[in-house]
Amino acid sequence: MEHHYMKLAIDMAKNTKGQTSPNPSVGCVIVKNNQITGVGAHLKAGEAHAERQALEMAKEKASGATMFVTLEPCSHYGRTPPCADAVIEAGISKVFIASTDPNPQVAGKGIEKLEKAGIEVDTGLMKEEADEINREFFHFISTGKPFVTLKTACSIDGKIATSTGESKWITGEEARKDGYRLRHEHDAILCGVGTVIEDNPSLTARLEDGGNNPVRIVLDTRLRMPLDSNLITDKLAETWIITTSLAEKEKINELEKHGVYVLQLESSHISIDQLLSVLGDKQITSLLVEGGGKVNDSFLRTGQFQRVVKYMAPLIIGGEKSKSSFSGEGIPLLKDTPHLKLHSMEPIGSDTKFVFYKREDN
Amino acid sequence: MEHHYMKLAIDMAKNTKGQTSPNPSVGCVIVKNNQITGVGAHLKAGEAHAERQALEMAKEKASGATMFVTLEPCSHYGRTPPCADAVIEAGISKVFIASTDPNPQVAGKGIEKLEKAGIEVDTGLMKEEADEINREFFHFISTGKPFVTLKTACSIDGKIATSTGESKWITGEEARKDGYRLRHEHDAILCGVGTVIEDNPSLTARLEDGGNNPVRIVLDTRLRMPLDSNLITDKLAETWIITTSLAEKEKINELEKHGVYVLQLESSHISIDQLLSVLGDKQITSLLVEGGGKVNDSFLRTGQFQRVVKYMAPLIIGGEKSKSSFSGEGIPLLKDTPHLKLHSMEPIGSDTKFVFYKREDN
Repeated sequence: MEHHYMKLAIDMAKNTKGQTSPNPSVGCVIVKNNQITGVGAHLKAGEAHAERQALEMAKEKASGATMFVTLEPCSHYGRTPPCADAVIEAGISKVFIASTDPNPQVAGKGIEKLEKAGIEVDTGLMKEEADEINREFFHFISTGKPFVTLKTACSIDGKIATSTGESKWITGEEARKDGYRLRHEHDAILCGVGTVIEDNPSLTARLEDGGNNPVRIVLDTRLRMPLDSNLITDKLAETWIITTSLAEKEKINELEKHGVYVLQLESSHISIDQLLSVLGDKQITSLLVEGGGKVNDSFLRTGQFQRVVKYMAPLIIGGEKSKSSFSGEGIPLLKDTPHLKLHSMEPIGSDTKFVFYKREDN
Repeated sequence: MEHHYMKLAIDMAKNTKGQTSPNPSVGCVIVKNNQITGVGAHLKAGEAHAERQALEMAKEKASGATMFVTLEPCSHYGRTPPCADAVIEAGISKVFIASTDPNPQVAGKGIEKLEKAGIEVDTGLMKEEADEINREFFHFISTGKPFVTLKTACSIDGKIATSTGESKWITGEEARKDGYRLRHEHDAILCGVGTVIEDNPSLTARLEDGGNNPVRIVLDTRLRMPLDSNLITDKLAETWIITTSLAEKEKINELEKHGVYVLQLESSHISIDQLLSVLGDKQITSLLVEGGGKVNDSFLRTGQFQRVVKYMAPLIIGGEKSKSSFSGEGIPLLKDTPHLKLHSMEPIGSDTKFVFYKREDN
């Protein structure tokens, strides 16, 4: 039964992914005499945490009850008072915690506080599943940089377009919809200005019932961004342009007049490392990179990514000159290529979706 | 229980795959009063069929028993007398058949013969699994050409080598061993002379306990084949060279002196269609194509393949100039690309193996 309750808490956390940033997604279930007396999920940064919502629902039935929570209750004052205090006040007698706090400065402090108050604490139940939900957040908290996902959609032979440049569509509708869901789950989405000039994308999540549009980030060394591109005119989400010392001041002013945020780096080229630090400072916890090939190559060669999501269509394009997902230099020697670990593969329509994580030993 | 017995028959057929060509793999189980009284598998062309072996084991217990056989018993005199007659003589009272005979000229005739003799016949039990085992044979019987499998081993981004040409090894040992097993299961393996000159492969099955080495076929328009290549000197399997009117007579003589079979086509280029007809005439029922890129491209553009086996390693190579599985022209328009259907995907070591079949509607 313990798995059953924690699973429910995890399900709530999973389903609220994409709406809590820069906070983690958390679910909570309160159980007394094998009856669920309260459930809660953290819904939005600044609003009540999962534990408080579940306690609110359980009211006096929380006394003597058992709590299942996907993440260690906080012990410090943030935008809301510490949850550990609320758990203690409500008279909870036992707490199951899946993931401990990823922030090394506070990890274990919530547990300590609960135990000092005489509450029995069990940690690690379904930890792996729970850690998975907030993988991006945990990375952000421990590095100060966004968790980077490279997304590609290609044929069996790794091509993203035919030799004549045709690319719409290689994957089917279901895979493309899943790709929109992926955007919804990220704080920001990034492409190069080349992609903007060629494809004029809108880079929105396009979920049928609304959803969260990520900040749209364009890497644009020389500020070639066209003023009439969808990213500037559609106002569907914020657009940030990252440029360099090579950008003209006038063009910056013009773009800013159009409501675009322009971030000018001091150097004459965009360093991925510096970029990620800047984005981390701006509370971008997760970044989805949607190419093109040169931008993908920059992330590949600097090793600055954590996940690869690949949609593979069951067709072969072939051709020496047809584009692959990564262009540019690539990795010249096999021993230097980043090694990944297949996390999952599943059919989506007639395509297949793969999720790889970069291995820790890279 | 019926599934249980047919499953055993199928398992026997599966495990003898690669040793029965040009015959199909067949398994047979005889059951009386829920006791298995005979099992049999066809082991080698020219030797007894599965039904006869199982009947031999069952002896007088075959009378009144039920037979489970993966393929319709033959009704005609080939290298051995018809199995249907033996089944009738033994007094079998019921026969379960998974696959009917793929040869349109004899399909159903074995069943007819059994039924006329008063035997109850049930067809179609586990047909899909049984058909799968002899997919290559069924294709060969109905088209007169070998069943063609394209094999590739590549990185996540579809590369078979780095920009510096490094390709050993992209996939791990388990995947490479599985590739050897694939060779064992095919009558012939094919590559271009470019691959022979560059890599000097031996193209053998290299199974630890021996196994079946396929005939090694090299496409060599101008007869550039080096006389000291492993395919000529190692004598581990037959080597056939397919060449054209551009080949010099002296070189042909020289190669033949080295025990190589040289097949000279009349035209000045190798037509894949003609090649496959010639191989079919020579009883090659299945052909494994192991590139390089140009040879793969010829099969891709002519659509003359039925299956793709892909091993994908969990690494990214990138690079505009690093080789993909298919080079040459490719397919310029998406609507013309061959559409495949994912048949299976499974982890092999840290790699992933995919089997795709070409869809009938191409």
